[in-house]
Amino acid sequence: MEREEIKKLQWERLQVTLNRAFLRVGHYRKMFEERGIEPQDIRSLEDLSILPFTTREDLTGGDPYQMFAVPLRDIVRLHVTKGRKGEPIVVGFTSHDLDIWTELSQYTLCMAGIGREDVIQITFPFSMSSAALGFQYGAEKLGAAVIPYWDTEVSRGIEVMEEYRATCLITLPSYFSQVFEKAKKGEVKLSSLSLKKVLLYGEPFYTSERDEWEELLEVKIIDTYGLTEIFPPGIACECLAREGMHVFEEHLLIEIVDPTTGKVLPSGETGELVITTLTKEGVPLIRYRTGDITSIITEKCSCGSDLVRIERIKGRTDNTIVVEGIRISAEEVEDFLSNFKKLSLRYQLIVERKEGKDSLSVKVELPPGADITSFRAIEKTSSEAEEKFMERTGIPVKFHLLEPGGLGEKYPLIIDKRKRS
Amino acid sequence: MEREEIKKLQWERLQVTLNRAFLRVGHYRKMFEERGIEPQDIRSLEDLSILPFTTREDLTGGDPYQMFAVPLRDIVRLHVTKGRKGEPIVVGFTSHDLDIWTELSQYTLCMAGIGREDVIQITFPFSMSSAALGFQYGAEKLGAAVIPYWDTEVSRGIEVMEEYRATCLITLPSYFSQVFEKAKKGEVKLSSLSLKKVLLYGEPFYTSERDEWEELLEVKIIDTYGLTEIFPPGIACECLAREGMHVFEEHLLIEIVDPTTGKVLPSGETGELVITTLTKEGVPLIRYRTGDITSIITEKCSCGSDLVRIERIKGRTDNTIVVEGIRISAEEVEDFLSNFKKLSLRYQLIVERKEGKDSLSVKVELPPGADITSFRAIEKTSSEAEEKFMERTGIPVKFHLLEPGGLGEKYPLIIDKRKRS
Repeated sequence: MEREEIKKLQWERLQVTLNRAFLRVGHYRKMFEERGIEPQDIRSLEDLSILPFTTREDLTGGDPYQMFAVPLRDIVRLHVTKGRKGEPIVVGFTSHDLDIWTELSQYTLCMAGIGREDVIQITFPFSMSSAALGFQYGAEKLGAAVIPYWDTEVSRGIEVMEEYRATCLITLPSYFSQVFEKAKKGEVKLSSLSLKKVLLYGEPFYTSERDEWEELLEVKIIDTYGLTEIFPPGIACECLAREGMHVFEEHLLIEIVDPTTGKVLPSGETGELVITTLTKEGVPLIRYRTGDITSIITEKCSCGSDLVRIERIKGRTDNTIVVEGIRISAEEVEDFLSNFKKLSLRYQLIVERKEGKDSLSVKVELPPGADITSFRAIEKTSSEAEEKFMERTGIPVKFHLLEPGGLGEKYPLIIDKRKRS
Repeated sequence: MEREEIKKLQWERLQVTLNRAFLRVGHYRKMFEERGIEPQDIRSLEDLSILPFTTREDLTGGDPYQMFAVPLRDIVRLHVTKGRKGEPIVVGFTSHDLDIWTELSQYTLCMAGIGREDVIQITFPFSMSSAALGFQYGAEKLGAAVIPYWDTEVSRGIEVMEEYRATCLITLPSYFSQVFEKAKKGEVKLSSLSLKKVLLYGEPFYTSERDEWEELLEVKIIDTYGLTEIFPPGIACECLAREGMHVFEEHLLIEIVDPTTGKVLPSGETGELVITTLTKEGVPLIRYRTGDITSIITEKCSCGSDLVRIERIKGRTDNTIVVEGIRISAEEVEDFLSNFKKLSLRYQLIVERKEGKDSLSVKVELPPGADITSFRAIEKTSSEAEEKFMERTGIPVKFHLLEPGGLGEKYPLIIDKRKRS
């Protein structure tokens, strides 16, 4: 499809989306009414920028089904994800939405050069069942053989890969990094692997890591992008040229905005990715702020596709980090601490990757006037905090309690030691 | 469908199955040839009993794809399950197999009175991803709203149930038992649950438990039956009359045999369930020994269905137990111990259910002549054993090391304290 045709299709679908949202979703109707406008006042793709953003906060609070554009009986799938304070967000898919998601997942695989001759092993943790299912449906549509293997124990995952001659692995970078570490230590017999392609999803990774992984394991690694709130996966994917990720523009309209002012930025400039869904029935989203930092690449890709590309995700606008596939925000930690009460709100998050495994620790000061001489009591508080934190977030964590003021005057809120040059 | 029609359909499909197995699966061709017979020598459903059984052992060892009747490129799904010694068994489904499995899963739900207005939450652990997907596909086909929520943390699962007004929960009895324990302690606000039906799968439970659960939670609990090697779920299911489980006979032929002699037993007598698949393309199975003890019920069910029923599963023919959805055999424990070497082969398995959570412990004697005075060394050995056992089986376990002879002369190999009167 030529760019002009894509634009035309996007414009037609945008009109339908705005009308549906206005007629069926209270939140959006209010948004239009507050501004004294109607969907027909948006007269071009560019006009979209006069509408406000949708945020994660809009998806939480009140009725969990408030953003749904169809009655619950037309929904065939519900996925639960998390808001910034850890509260659940529910996303609903109609049968038509699932068809489109499956198609986009299939495109993702095709773009990465995966075909029906492949044996695809899909491994994601519990918390990412939506991604696991998304890839599953796409791979089945493709007609490949699929091994859904949802175990985080890496050595067993490798055994299955060996035994069933998987040619493609789809997983988290942090999981793949553990496979790599085992291979580096000689714990994986490389000759017994049939692996040729690896699709990564859900976490950032660095080009330098990718080079190391590819060299040792003799595989081609492809980065993919999606969001539970929209399509996990199915928003964008690298082609084999790997010069950025192609965006599935027939179904999604993207903008890059200045995270502070909200102003739309021109192609090539770095900012926050904002997405408007063009075909979603269940939960259409208008100008959804993803929190992900990237830029639009306008040069034609050497693969020949006319789909616009975005740079691989460069970071986040908010104070969030992803640990073992689970996103956690500073806000959620704060919310946890303010409910926990035995600790102060002065804290610091530290993420490290050791032997391919990510770990999270929290340094937090005891409240002013706390008795810092009773080691036993301090230990009890910290293990209680660890337990409650794990229960709430599903992330194992180490709490290091400091004396009041122990963090000093100025300190970074998040230290991500996984970042490499 | 009348019984005569069912029988006719079964007979037609059996002939196709035997022919396909003979032509396409080396294992079955050899079986026929060794007996000097050909598929056409089987002239009625009853003649089937002259053929030998297929066992779990036939599915392991050698080429993992040896039982496949189609080339790998026609397989769209591979599920990995475990043999008796813990070695993996792979089961392949063609696209047609998936369609039938989905249909049978849908029947299962219909039989339990679940419809498209329901919101169905599906919760299974990692190890049971095949069951999770099986129910998922069936529920989607039904047009219900499905929440795939694969987290074993019970309190979060309950939150999701409350928040999204799930009307049906599909899970393991041991998981549901934890929900019940929380409700009993008042940790679940019963009025905030919309739950009406619970489908249980994958583990035994007792009628007395079901009564207690139903009374407190005001739900209707339905038992279902399936096997990863055949259809998980999709073999049999209780109807609302709950007078045994209806078998999906259009796709499966069942026999009850004496577990020792292998002789076919008449209806009403208790023995081992043996299943022949009638429509499976990928991995057809002839006279597959399930290891499950039950009997055939011949009286017509009050629901009116002509499908034959089996009693709910009464036990196992082999020394296996299911802990948190994972089946473990005495053979696998022995195999583990003989590889571990620091311990003897005199052991006893104990399973308990505390506050709804199942736990496994192993009492095992130290080898003759072991130094039983070094507590530190013994402790080290036992934690090493626990770690390695967990790595291999995925089941958390407690090892209690005894002095040589500590188990006494005669001792039961398995003590299942979950059994109630």
